[in-house]
Formats: sequence, C-alpha cells, structure tokens
Amino acid sequence: MSYNLAPLQNLIDQFERMQGIGNKTAQRMAFYILSLSDDEANAFAQAITDAHTKIKQCKICCDLADDELCPVCKDGSRDRSVICVVEDPRDVAAIERTHEYNGMYHVLHGAISPMDNIGPDQIRIKELIARLSDGEVEEIIMATNPTVEGEATAMYISRLLKPMGITISRLAYGVPVGADLEYADEITLSRAIKGRSLI
Amino acid sequence: MSYNLAPLQNLIDQFERMQGIGNKTAQRMAFYILSLSDDEANAFAQAITDAHTKIKQCKICCDLADDELCPVCKDGSRDRSVICVVEDPRDVAAIERTHEYNGMYHVLHGAISPMDNIGPDQIRIKELIARLSDGEVEEIIMATNPTVEGEATAMYISRLLKPMGITISRLAYGVPVGADLEYADEITLSRAIKGRSLI
Repeated sequence: MSYNLAPLQNLIDQFERMQGIGNKTAQRMAFYILSLSDDEANAFAQAITDAHTKIKQCKICCDLADDELCPVCKDGSRDRSVICVVEDPRDVAAIERTHEYNGMYHVLHGAISPMDNIGPDQIRIKELIARLSDGEVEEIIMATNPTVEGEATAMYISRLLKPMGITISRLAYGVPVGADLEYADEITLSRAIKGRSLI
Repeated sequence: MSYNLAPLQNLIDQFERMQGIGNKTAQRMAFYILSLSDDEANAFAQAITDAHTKIKQCKICCDLADDELCPVCKDGSRDRSVICVVEDPRDVAAIERTHEYNGMYHVLHGAISPMDNIGPDQIRIKELIARLSDGEVEEIIMATNPTVEGEATAMYISRLLKPMGITISRLAYGVPVGADLEYADEITLSRAIKGRSLI
C-alpha cells in the first residue's frame, strides 16, 4: 500500500527497511511521527543523528562508546587480566546486567560465517590479538553465541591463542534456569549432563 | 535494560515510545540506525523532519496533504455531491485502493469516545457541517469504524445532518469476502443476514 504524499511515503519506506518491520507497522510508525508535536519530532530526528555521530567504537575493546574509550575500559577498578569475548555490543550489556563479571570485554562485531562471506578478517580478531601482546591478560572467556557460527569462532580464536599460553574458557552450557526439562532440546540436555557438577 | 551511552539510550527511548514497540524491538531499531552509513542515517532523520513539517491537513477535507489541498480535493474529476466520512487518513487510503469510489472524503481524526474524553468538539465535525452550507452535497456515506465509538459517531453525525435533508448512508455490514462463515462472530453474521440481498 502506498500513499501519494511523498514525504509520508518516504518515511514509511525508511521504517520498512528495518529488519522485522512490515508495511503495516511502518505505516503505524510514520503516523506516530505525524502525531508528534514539532519539538518531539525534531528531538526524534536529532536522536538519530546524535546516536549516529556520537557513538563510535572503543579503541581498546571495540564495544560502542561515546568517547575514545568505553565505560568498562575507562574503569580503573576492573580486572584487566580477564577478557570476555562476545559477538555483539548487546552481549556486553547482557553480561553487565548479571553484576557477576568484573573483567574486560572484547566485541568481535560478528562471528565467522563462510555462508555469509564473513571470515576471520571481517571481525575484530586482529584487535584482540593486539591486546594480548603486553602479557597482562591471563584468561580469555569465549562468550560467543551457542550457534554453529559462534562455536566456530570460539574454536578458531582458541586455536590461535593456545600457543600464547593463555587460559581459554567457554561459557557453561546447560539448561536455562527456570526452564522446564521436558522442553529442553537434546543437545542442550546432553551438554548439561556432561557438564554436571557435584552438590 | 538500559545502556550507559546516553545517545544510544535516548534513541532506544524514542523508539520505545511508539505504540506496540517493546524494549527489545526498540533496541533492535536503534542498532539498525547505528549500522547505517552517515548518509543513510541523515536521510532517515531528514525523512522524519520532512514528514512532520511538509505534511499538513487539507483545508477542505482535513485529510493529510503536502499542499493547501489534498490530491482528492484538488482533483476536478471527482464527484462533489458525495462525501465519505472516515475516522482516519489511513481509511481514505484503504477506500482509494478499491478504485470503486469517486466522491470526496472528510476525515474526522478520531471518533466520539467519552471514555477517552473525546467529544464531538474534539473531532472535525464542525468542518464537515461547514462544507454542507452551499447545498452541493447530496449524500454523506458514514464509513467510521464498525466499533462502539465509530457507531456512536456515525449516529451523532447522522442526527445532526438529518434536518438538512441530506441522504445519509452507512457502509454495509456483512461477512468479509474470503472469510470462513464458521469463524464469523454472531453480531457480524446477524448483520449479514439482516442485510442480505437478492441474487
């Protein structure tokens, strides 16, 4: 469905380009914009420009940052001997929410996926290697996603780093807390059995 | 979940304010914006500003317009003796898509809903009355939504206009084409029976 008002149709098209947003939702969003006051609409447009111009990648860990360094890399109280390697900035936010981890991060911005033409050079592996040169880092925790691509990336990086004498660990697999055993898939369950611990 | 980068969190908040957009979707949208090139992000922000500043209400029918008048009101070939009254600009677009209607429109921008504090003065009823003064209009088709509010609005307007000697009609109720009778609700089905036509 299209509107014959160019500015409206253009806005709908912009929203529709987002992944997971269909034509109806894009229309609803465009009409939401029209319903805003002038100030609100300007603030919205400004938020887009701001986010885009002010947010860069941290020089150390490649996480998103509004400065040279991200808040974690700036924080002097964090344990610089551990680096947790994740695929995406959202994963950093997820781990931070646990309040269980006090080390550093490294964001790969993707995972190795030959199907999508993403090789080791397309993600931030070089930057990770560069961080290990001063010998301060003792452990790398691989926290890539538990998918084929995430596994392959974790495996690739661990083989690369093994010769450097750094401890490399992987997030535990198992049944999610609060889930129903009945609905756990076979692979997760078999990993949970293998990784069982004494109580 | 919140990010400690102000520009990112601000953008997420902007998206989350939209009806039907939850926190996860808002995050996904904000990360989509970050993934755009500078030009694309600027175009997106510009589309919002443009839609907001360039789109006004048509002086005659209150539909959206990028000029003094909307395309329908400008079009000399349309039948000025019939006005179809709808609640929302999207309803105009929906009716236009049928290519069955060649009259004019009037957009109320809402429906009477005492629960939401929307009375007859909050929607464009005055503007509709003003259009009837020259005696050119012979029929008003009430195409408000088939909801309690839409019905009440149609009833209110028809009572207001009856004394002016104008024919007032209502969109037919019935089973939607392509639907399964089994799944039609009782009210729709009873209206379809009442409104049956000879074949």
